Amino acid sequence: MHFKFSLNVSKHSTCTTGSSSLSFRSHTCGELRPADVGEEVTLCGWVQYLRQDLFVIMRDFSGLAQILIPQDEVRLHVAVTFTISVIEMPTGEIEVLAESVEILNVCRKLPFEIKDFVKKSESLRMQYRYLDLRSSQMQYNLRLRSQLVMKMREYLCNVHGFVDVETPTLFKRTPGGAKEFVVPSREPGRFYSLPQSPQQFKQLLMVAGIDRYFQLARCYRDEGSKPDRQPEFTQVDIEMSFVDQAGIRGLIEGLVQYSWPVEKDPVSTPFPCITYEKAMKDYGVDKPDTRFAMKLMDISKTFHNTEIEFLKDALNQPGGCIQAICIPDGAVKECQLSLVFFCDIFVFFFPKEVSVVLVKADGALKSPLNRLMPASAKQQLLQMAQARPGDLLLISAGTQECRPLLGKLRLQCAELLESSGVAVRDPSAFHFLWVVDFPLFLPKEEDPDQLESAHHPFTAPLPEDAHLLYSLPHKVRGQHYDLVLNGCEIGGGSIRIHKASDQQHVLETILKEDPSLLSHLLEALDSGAPPHGGIALGLDRFLSIIVGAPSIRDVIAFPKSFRGHDLMSRAPDFVSEDELKSYHIAVNWPAGDEGNQEK
Amino acid sequence: MHFKFSLNVSKHSTCTTGSSSLSFRSHTCGELRPADVGEEVTLCGWVQYLRQDLFVIMRDFSGLAQILIPQDEVRLHVAVTFTISVIEMPTGEIEVLAESVEILNVCRKLPFEIKDFVKKSESLRMQYRYLDLRSSQMQYNLRLRSQLVMKMREYLCNVHGFVDVETPTLFKRTPGGAKEFVVPSREPGRFYSLPQSPQQFKQLLMVAGIDRYFQLARCYRDEGSKPDRQPEFTQVDIEMSFVDQAGIRGLIEGLVQYSWPVEKDPVSTPFPCITYEKAMKDYGVDKPDTRFAMKLMDISKTFHNTEIEFLKDALNQPGGCIQAICIPDGAVKECQLSLVFFCDIFVFFFPKEVSVVLVKADGALKSPLNRLMPASAKQQLLQMAQARPGDLLLISAGTQECRPLLGKLRLQCAELLESSGVAVRDPSAFHFLWVVDFPLFLPKEEDPDQLESAHHPFTAPLPEDAHLLYSLPHKVRGQHYDLVLNGCEIGGGSIRIHKASDQQHVLETILKEDPSLLSHLLEALDSGAPPHGGIALGLDRFLSIIVGAPSIRDVIAFPKSFRGHDLMSRAPDFVSEDELKSYHIAVNWPAGDEGNQEK
Repeated sequence: MHFKFSLNVSKHSTCTTGSSSLSFRSHTCGELRPADVGEEVTLCGWVQYLRQDLFVIMRDFSGLAQILIPQDEVRLHVAVTFTISVIEMPTGEIEVLAESVEILNVCRKLPFEIKDFVKKSESLRMQYRYLDLRSSQMQYNLRLRSQLVMKMREYLCNVHGFVDVETPTLFKRTPGGAKEFVVPSREPGRFYSLPQSPQQFKQLLMVAGIDRYFQLARCYRDEGSKPDRQPEFTQVDIEMSFVDQAGIRGLIEGLVQYSWPVEKDPVSTPFPCITYEKAMKDYGVDKPDTRFAMKLMDISKTFHNTEIEFLKDALNQPGGCIQAICIPDGAVKECQLSLVFFCDIFVFFFPKEVSVVLVKADGALKSPLNRLMPASAKQQLLQMAQARPGDLLLISAGTQECRPLLGKLRLQCAELLESSGVAVRDPSAFHFLWVVDFPLFLPKEEDPDQLESAHHPFTAPLPEDAHLLYSLPHKVRGQHYDLVLNGCEIGGGSIRIHKASDQQHVLETILKEDPSLLSHLLEALDSGAPPHGGIALGLDRFLSIIVGAPSIRDVIAFPKSFRGHDLMSRAPDFVSEDELKSYHIAVNWPAGDEGNQEK
Repeated sequence: MHFKFSLNVSKHSTCTTGSSSLSFRSHTCGELRPADVGEEVTLCGWVQYLRQDLFVIMRDFSGLAQILIPQDEVRLHVAVTFTISVIEMPTGEIEVLAESVEILNVCRKLPFEIKDFVKKSESLRMQYRYLDLRSSQMQYNLRLRSQLVMKMREYLCNVHGFVDVETPTLFKRTPGGAKEFVVPSREPGRFYSLPQSPQQFKQLLMVAGIDRYFQLARCYRDEGSKPDRQPEFTQVDIEMSFVDQAGIRGLIEGLVQYSWPVEKDPVSTPFPCITYEKAMKDYGVDKPDTRFAMKLMDISKTFHNTEIEFLKDALNQPGGCIQAICIPDGAVKECQLSLVFFCDIFVFFFPKEVSVVLVKADGALKSPLNRLMPASAKQQLLQMAQARPGDLLLISAGTQECRPLLGKLRLQCAELLESSGVAVRDPSAFHFLWVVDFPLFLPKEEDPDQLESAHHPFTAPLPEDAHLLYSLPHKVRGQHYDLVLNGCEIGGGSIRIHKASDQQHVLETILKEDPSLLSHLLEALDSGAPPHGGIALGLDRFLSIIVGAPSIRDVIAFPKSFRGHDLMSRAPDFVSEDELKSYHIAVNWPAGDEGNQEK
């Protein structure tokens, strides 16, 4: 038996809007309702599976529909269109009966099943990305991305009068832009560069009087192989004139609130805001995960008379201190094994840097430090660290470095506790946080007498520190702000330097850079540049946190592998010498590697 | 006298939405109204000019405001903020009185004045683009672009359920993609390529069940130096599943109507639609400008007994014909000079290809052909060509080639008439037109026995021609459609081949290409690909026609020069040998050109 259904669009043109407008179908699988009983409708989609020799389970992006049909007509995964009658079942549910079917395409045996419970290797998913994207999770991720971005645009463009301006991606190499891809031009020796962000353009647009700019900007970063980084990524790029930090922060809080998925708990604003100094002091990191406590505590006092050699040494250094974190229930049976095992390994490799103290059920301490501490000190330690029986204390002594060390251990312990089944962080919680008042300059690693920009050379100083720019630049705090979500930096920006003389001073005198390389920007600032500032949000990272994806690859339609490869099309690929000629370049084959050249 | 105004954002936070939200200002210059009388408001902007030693004319993106103030406070183009009082003048108009002023920045002497009537050279505009963008025309163009794009997104996303999906720009080189920029990777000899369009990705997204995709896609094309082309440009990229030509055309007509600027006359739909064959027959071009007539006419009949050698020869060829266009009033005094001069030059260089016939006031002909034509033929010629006294006829004889020739002359004559002050085309008219039923394949120029795709190899044949694909492929018409506006192609698309076997046949048997280079696409089609089709609109070109700009550079914030240069930052630029090392490439300096390498 073979049903033939000839496509006749005029028949289905009843939808003028929505997901079935202008289509062969009249409805999507997911939207059939008891109200449709008696209607003749047309569905288009794929055969997901066959059931009881009687039913076809049909899939489209909206869901599944069960259709009563002679089974021998169809095979798995073929694209089909059904004209069906919707009938009411005695139970009150609806059922759909095929009137006619047209098989629109056939299907080879697929390399994996399109079922959510079928686990696929990452490389298989990437190689057959067009099948992987059929999964309900990936459909959800990409559709949520589209909706979120649409809401962001509405907010910026329609609510706040921002202008969406596209900026070039074929640009000039930034001085020292080691992570910028180069693009050879047809002029010998001349190259474009793919910029890491539209930073210069957004500032020039403010000089141009655009007043409020935004762009969903494609950015490029060549970092070779780094896990969970992509050579191209997208940022929500924003710049405003006549604005201060509070204005930008308010804008972004509104943006997040406006675009937040309706199915999630609403976000409350304003977001908490802490200084860089406080973040380092309490969390040992500039992007704290505030979903849980376990803050760093300064317990130097406990040991100010100590005879314990390494603690004494630490306190005798300038800026020396003793820090601790208390892991609640970290010493109880279920957690102890993994935590203590982890800490033991850690202490084995870095013996002097971290000491582990278990607080036993009776309040006694179990630690190599135990016998070296007088009872009063033990008492004070427990009090200062607010430790209770069953808790585990990690103690580190030194100067600056002990805070970041404990900051990392804090996060690792949280993960270890969670993997032992202890609830540390609410998986449905979203903790936004502003971090502000960063230092404007940091000593260069390779030459600590020299300063480099903590973020970039265009960040303005805090007004109250501005006078130090010409005397004590290392003490200047910048008007930079980071937006942190659940311990990940999802955005950063600043109020910019808008006076050419200040910008020239920063580039030339403080950073010892050649200002002629940025002469166009300096000239622009000298053309009556308005006060301005902005921010960039990392869209891929933001989305991956919202949907709870383990990798940003799960919110990008066609990502590259961690080695930067497109496994589906096999990019990057070899290009013939002949094709490179018009770009006046030749490949320098590493010795012994020239065989690769073939193909 | 020096007024100092300290910025206090809380004071101006009364706007929670609109162009002044979150800003230092409370109003824009353009929005002050009599209703604001008595208010104290804050404006931020630039000093446009000074007047009568008393007034400052202040500019922001919204317009100008005249402010009463002691002049010695401010200089031209400095960025300033004023706190002002709005007072009512006896005339009923409002005037604003400065209460305080803060000078936010200073300004050097600018290379040109920011006044619309000041003509600047193209290269000066490009070098100081951030000043050029301050002009009211460029502000209008960029703001209109942003609004139009926002409306397009609302229509696609909110009205029709499209999903905005970003596709990669670092991709694999397309077989034969001579116009694709290459991007060296860190693996020796391997290159990414910047694609000319997301064609493969949009089709893969249909296989992936995304159902309706759109993207404002950045595309790249390396064509060296071509006037009014840009190495990177933006297309509105659309693809739909389960759709036919009528569905896509209806979608685009709705899209244009929905996003059309409110200040222009509304667009009526559906757009007229003609076949490729008819376009070539009537206009001699596949993108006719239908704002004026002057259509091509077949006047072969008039000469079927002619003794004029070259006309006789033309008619004796297979497919030979004689074509004419009639230029109304082309022979009257004011036009004659330029038109006849132009035609004379033309005929001088291509003597046999075009003959000029002037219809004198008394109906007599003035032409080299005149004495060779019997009176009856002259009569018939005037009748067939619907020529009246004062008109000018251009006649061409031959086979295929005479139509495109007259098609070009038709456009050039229209321009010449307009430059002589004759109204030919309404400058405020927008004539949209669909052109359909293109041939699917064309003979290759270099080897006419071989076929190549008229557009691209993924276009499906017309259903009624599909059977010819395996027998007479050169006769097959494709399901391709072009959208033409005022004689410019602003978009093109097609219903795609969705069966792997058909696609393989086209690639391998008809086009003689290696199908393994597109194996991932063939495999995808073989995975139950739905019927699908799409379109891409050239956003830059579309906008330049809407705003009446002479070049697409006028609707792009930071365009490249026609040689592909960024004159502001001087890109592309030299890159050191050292920086190229990690990409395993070296520059092949042309002989004698190595001096350039310095810098």
